[in-house]
Amino acid sequence: MPKLRAHNLTITLDGFATGTDQRLDAPFGDGVDGLHDWMFAAMRDRAEGRTGIDVDFVARSEENIGATIMGRNMFGPLRGPWQDESWTGWWGDNPPYHHDVFVRTHHLRPSLPMEGGTTFHFSDEPVETVLERAFDAAAGKDVRIGGGPDTVQQYLRAQLVDELHLAIAPMLAGRGERLLDNLGDGVDGYRVAELTSSATVTHAVLVRR
Amino acid sequence: MPKLRAHNLTITLDGFATGTDQRLDAPFGDGVDGLHDWMFAAMRDRAEGRTGIDVDFVARSEENIGATIMGRNMFGPLRGPWQDESWTGWWGDNPPYHHDVFVRTHHLRPSLPMEGGTTFHFSDEPVETVLERAFDAAAGKDVRIGGGPDTVQQYLRAQLVDELHLAIAPMLAGRGERLLDNLGDGVDGYRVAELTSSATVTHAVLVRR
Repeated sequence: MPKLRAHNLTITLDGFATGTDQRLDAPFGDGVDGLHDWMFAAMRDRAEGRTGIDVDFVARSEENIGATIMGRNMFGPLRGPWQDESWTGWWGDNPPYHHDVFVRTHHLRPSLPMEGGTTFHFSDEPVETVLERAFDAAAGKDVRIGGGPDTVQQYLRAQLVDELHLAIAPMLAGRGERLLDNLGDGVDGYRVAELTSSATVTHAVLVRR
Repeated sequence: MPKLRAHNLTITLDGFATGTDQRLDAPFGDGVDGLHDWMFAAMRDRAEGRTGIDVDFVARSEENIGATIMGRNMFGPLRGPWQDESWTGWWGDNPPYHHDVFVRTHHLRPSLPMEGGTTFHFSDEPVETVLERAFDAAAGKDVRIGGGPDTVQQYLRAQLVDELHLAIAPMLAGRGERLLDNLGDGVDGYRVAELTSSATVTHAVLVRR
């Protein structure tokens, strides 16, 4: 059975996935500088053929993914209705997805085909419906859920996430959006299957019970 | 200079130090069963002469401590005014402190000497004042801050904690009291100096910048 998987979601030691005031020149907001440094370093290491715990987790994140779901804040810094359709994501003309990407938003717009095989679709349908569409698009491969925290929480509460890889960075934010928040009884569906530290971060993996 | 130190404070992966409904037969509340198992195992291992990461952290927690500060919820499950003075803590006639313990509470009562050198003092004075009294009582040794979360947060916000050892257990709670919460700018005073995993938990150490 294809799975819904989240990878490389990085939080501070006090649990924050974003800081405050997310915007164009600070996609993750203020107070979380360097949060994803471990991941960029692991990507470089991997490209240069090095191995290690962080490299392994980054490699796992790219295996067998056929579609992606993300929230609107992960697609862009804009809030409210689209002023026009000139924003095409953070990633330039050739986004690194190369498959269908479903952006959950109340503000719909036409599907947006990009170079390299990525097409952004915009949907305000329920989480289950979007997931069905993503599984269809993935054609037997797994679906990856990106961020932000609110989108991940919706899928966790609905018990739809099969595997969630979290990296805990040794820093504090004090404020922002927590990843593992507003879950309540939703956590009953999950257990922590892995907990291990590299030299730079701690990795945890949640799986369905 | 003597330090204010916290040790073995254990949280779930989603950040909770206690569950819900703390009471006599569930001192840490519901939803966090097994949270401190790593610590009890390490204490046993240590008593039997075994070594390891967890044992090392437990050993560090007991070095050079001359007084303890805790919140009222760590002293007992009772809330509101004392009905009488029959409650003498969770620890029996001979508590494992063997020094002065300062219990922060709005509900004062006379100091309570116990067997083995522990004396509980009850104080509603400001955090700084209680800390001064504790340093006096410690006579050159360090002061340890116990829990609960609210007490730890007050001392963190006041930038008075010199070292805080945290253990992250591979479990989820979904609700309860978070340890690293309500800190805001308070986190600016701290950095994460250590982050390492044993087979059972991840250890993190916060220190003053």
